[in-house]
Formats: sequence, C-alpha cells, structure tokens
Amino acid sequence: MSAKRILAITGGIGGAKLCLGLAKILGSEELAFVVNSADDFRHLGLHVSPDIDTLVYTLSGTANAETGWGRCDESWNFMQALKELGGESWFALGDKDLAMHVERTRLLADGWSLTEVTKNLASALGIDYPIFPMCDESLRTRVETDQGVLDFQTYFVRERCEPTVRGFVYDGADRSRLNPALTAWLDEAPPSGVILCPSNPYVSIEPILQVNGMRDFLINCQAPVVAVSPVVAGQAIKGPTVKMMRELGVPGTAETVAAYYADFLDGFVLDTEDEGQALRIQALGLETTVTQSVMRSLDDRTALARDCLDFVDQLLSR
Amino acid sequence: MSAKRILAITGGIGGAKLCLGLAKILGSEELAFVVNSADDFRHLGLHVSPDIDTLVYTLSGTANAETGWGRCDESWNFMQALKELGGESWFALGDKDLAMHVERTRLLADGWSLTEVTKNLASALGIDYPIFPMCDESLRTRVETDQGVLDFQTYFVRERCEPTVRGFVYDGADRSRLNPALTAWLDEAPPSGVILCPSNPYVSIEPILQVNGMRDFLINCQAPVVAVSPVVAGQAIKGPTVKMMRELGVPGTAETVAAYYADFLDGFVLDTEDEGQALRIQALGLETTVTQSVMRSLDDRTALARDCLDFVDQLLSR
Repeated sequence: MSAKRILAITGGIGGAKLCLGLAKILGSEELAFVVNSADDFRHLGLHVSPDIDTLVYTLSGTANAETGWGRCDESWNFMQALKELGGESWFALGDKDLAMHVERTRLLADGWSLTEVTKNLASALGIDYPIFPMCDESLRTRVETDQGVLDFQTYFVRERCEPTVRGFVYDGADRSRLNPALTAWLDEAPPSGVILCPSNPYVSIEPILQVNGMRDFLINCQAPVVAVSPVVAGQAIKGPTVKMMRELGVPGTAETVAAYYADFLDGFVLDTEDEGQALRIQALGLETTVTQSVMRSLDDRTALARDCLDFVDQLLSR
Repeated sequence: MSAKRILAITGGIGGAKLCLGLAKILGSEELAFVVNSADDFRHLGLHVSPDIDTLVYTLSGTANAETGWGRCDESWNFMQALKELGGESWFALGDKDLAMHVERTRLLADGWSLTEVTKNLASALGIDYPIFPMCDESLRTRVETDQGVLDFQTYFVRERCEPTVRGFVYDGADRSRLNPALTAWLDEAPPSGVILCPSNPYVSIEPILQVNGMRDFLINCQAPVVAVSPVVAGQAIKGPTVKMMRELGVPGTAETVAAYYADFLDGFVLDTEDEGQALRIQALGLETTVTQSVMRSLDDRTALARDCLDFVDQLLSR
C-alpha cells in the first residue's frame, strides 16, 4: 500500500463524528479536513463559525457530547446576563465557546485569513491535522422559504427549521476560490482518497461544492471520491436533511443523496437498513458498500471510518 | 427647602460608593450622575467602559463588593478558555460582565450614542437615575510615563500603575462637547448642588473637566460645587492617586486635591484625619467640612452622602 492521504469534506455535527473516527486511525500527515464555512455568521458583533468549531471541538475532545455542538463542561452566565440586558439570546453561546468567537473576530479584524485563524485556534486546542475552511471569502448559505429568504442561522436556529424550504442561495460563491492552503496541500502530494462525510447535502456539502474550483477538483480527482449517506432508513441522522428533501419534492432517501453527488462520486456508503437501494445507486454508475453507519459510540465512529478507508482502498485497487 | 437636584461627578470605584450613598437618599428626579468615560477602551474588539460599568453595577446592587469592579457572583470561564487559546488575558472580563461589553459594542456599532447605550443597559438593570457619560465623543486618558505614553488601561491594569508618571494627555478633548443629554437635564431645571465624588483628580475627574463646556459650567454654576477628598491621611482610599502626586512632585494630601479644583469649587469635604489642613484649604477661598469620609459599610456611604448634602444646603443658605 502507498501512503494514505485522505481528504475529508464535512459540515457540522454528523460529519464531525466521522472525522473523529478517521483521526483515531490516521495521523496528521495522512488526513486533512475541508469544512463548511457557509453557515458562519456575524452575531453580537462576533464572527461565529459553527461547523469549524464543531469540528475543532470534536477533534480536540472538548465537544459537548450531548448536543454535538458547543463545548463540554460549559457554563451559560454570559447568555443569562445578556438576556437580562435585553440582548439577543436566540443563538446560545456558552462562556467558554465565546472565547473562540472573540479571538477569531479579533484575529480576522487584525487581517488574518479564516484559514490562519482556524489553524491558530485548532493548534491552541492541540490539533495538528490541517483543517481548511472551504474558502477564505464570505460565502453564505441563504434559505429560500415560504417566509422569504432567510440567513442560514436564522432559518436553522431561530426558526428551528420550521419554514418550508423552496431552495437555496449560496451568496458570494462567484467571488470564492478554493482555499489556497488546500491547493498547497493538494500540490504537496495527491490525495489517495476523498471522503464526503455524512452531512446535509444542501447546506453543508453543497456550499463547499459551490466554491470555485472545488467541483472541478472532485470531478478530475484521480483518487476515489466516496460519500457516506447522511440519510438512513428515510431519516436524517441529525438535522433537517429529510424535511428539506420532502419540501424540495425529492424522496427522502440515501439514493437521493447519491444521485445528488453522482457526477463526481466513485462510491457511496450505505447503511445496512438501506441495502435495498444499492442496486439503484449502482445504476447511477457508483460503487456501493453497505455497513452499520449510525454512529452512537466512539467505536462506531472508528468502525465507520475504517469501513470508509477500506472502501477507498478497494476502489483504488480496481 | 427647595427641591433637590444634585449632579454627582464621578470616576470608578471610590466615587461610585458615594454615588450609591446619594442614591439611597435621593430619587431619580433629584439626582443625576456624570461619569468618566476616558478610561473606556477597545479590548478584544469590545468597547469596555470600566467607570460606567462600576457605577451601573454599584447602583444596581450587582457589583462585586470585594473588588469594587466587575459583577458579583461572577464566573471566569470565558477568560480561562481565552487564555488557553492564547488570547490576551491581562484585563479580566467575567462571564456576566462580558454581556455588558458585547451588548454595548453591538449597540454602538448600530449607531447608538454612548449615552443611549448607557441608559439602555442601566435601565435593563433597574436603574432609573440619569447616568451621563461625560461626552459621547472618544476622549481618552493617556499616561506619560518613564516608559513612554501609555493608554490608560495599559498603565492601570497591565502595568499595575508601576511606571513613573510624568503627566497626562487627554486625547480627543478638543473634539469633545458636553453631553447633550446632560445639557438638556441642566436646562430642565438648574441643579441645587454639584458633588465631585472621591475619585482620582488626574485620571477620573480631570478628563471630565477637559470636556469642552464642563469647566465653564462648573465655574458659572449658581449652585454650590463641592468635592470630597479622595486622599485621607496621605493615602488614596483606592488606586494610585497619591503615588501619582508624589511622582508629579506635589504633596500627597487632601489639600493638593482642593487646590487642584480651587478655581471652580465652593466647598471641600475633608476627613477628620486631615482636619489640620482645613485652615490652609480655607485660605484657598473654599469652605470646608470635616467628617468621617472612609466608606467601608453601606451605612458609611449613606452617612457621607448625607454630610455632603447637608454641606451643599449649608453653602446654599449663605
């Protein structure tokens, strides 16, 4: 076997679980992450990067295991005091978590790029894996709903995903470019595999695909590109994926996700519950592998990561 | 007696104690505060207003009684997390306290004036006394020291007042103007007395005097203007007042403070320990009153406030 060099593409909570599994197996020379920054937003004057932080907290062992987002051993005294002052309290920011946003905002204001800030903060938390925000430019997901076009966090957190989705706008995509640090990482040595983690295809992965150069990279990638279904047995592991599919008029299935990525994908990882969809996904021109993909324990994460890496190896040897 | 209408001019901790005493006696129609905002600074991207917050916390009963600054029942999880991220941790910001700075910064960025922000935050904490930052413009105290010109908080907190003071710069004073809300309050009905609280003359009161129009107002004020000595028995009740006096080459005494204000002052409140200086202060053309001015308990604060109000009445009736 040649050296491993895996690029994992991820959104927040669900994807970060698989990222942790991969990090339990691969070292920082073998694994890098591209993470969605299209749900970043300015809140209370602070630059908040929900998916980046979820990944950083998950990899550093400081994530809140119960919620999936935010930090463990968190306190909420800032939030409580802010509420008493009449401030906006719909987006929960824990006292420790707040340090990330304050420090990020300060460094960005000092002229650092989001990539540099992320590297600095991740490194402070002991992470040496390369973590690339999908781009340094402002590319923001807006959700077209029956209540108008909403900023992603307004839709997602404040409105609790309740408005009916009609489509998405990826604001700033035309001005974005593939993260130069990612380009440098790719130039250093070609990846041996690309794994799309089980994240929402519309609001976690699609914004990444919208970055100028990303889709071309995936289409032209010599290494196997595989995706793990975020939908199992017609249910999203986490979040509004299936609700969105229903509202967009497509079946809420793993197959819908596979079809969505079919133009650049080589293989698709299905849950055993959805084994019945394997043939139809293969008909899209994709290889499939079937496994237990719901990650409850840390062992589940490592096991799924192992399955993904084996699947990549298997596709590589063809 | 005609209706009371007292204007208290104050800096942070020491002055705020007397302000609380005054507020125990007078209602919000009878009492207003002008507070130093020249030690405001931008820290971690946030607009921090130390003296305003000390006054607001003191009046609302949410102050930390031990330190005099910050909030009671405070936690420090943000600060700890920030330190772990390599952020600047020399200026302690508690988790609850942080809410004030975040909300203030957000409102200022939204175009509110510092006066409007202060009113809003104080009101949220249940305070209905008018609190006027000395001006809405940026007027900042810089300290000329043997280590160069330092921003006030750098001198005061980071360098712990250790550098030798050579003088002060009140940056932006030329562009400042008397707070329009204060002008409106004064136009509504003339004050029956002005009390300079026991605050540092150079870095708490002088910046207020530097605001265009403030010194003229005090000189021309028809009502008695009295000051309470922040120096007792050659010691500052709080902070570096006497150290500064020594370094500026003037005696570290109550008399020095009285002389400093002599051009607009009518009366001076001396501690019993300094009774020996009364005659010399009277020689400056000031009336004096002698009392126990060190405020340890809440009763001390109310008693000193009562003494100040009686002194004003006494001067008024002459």
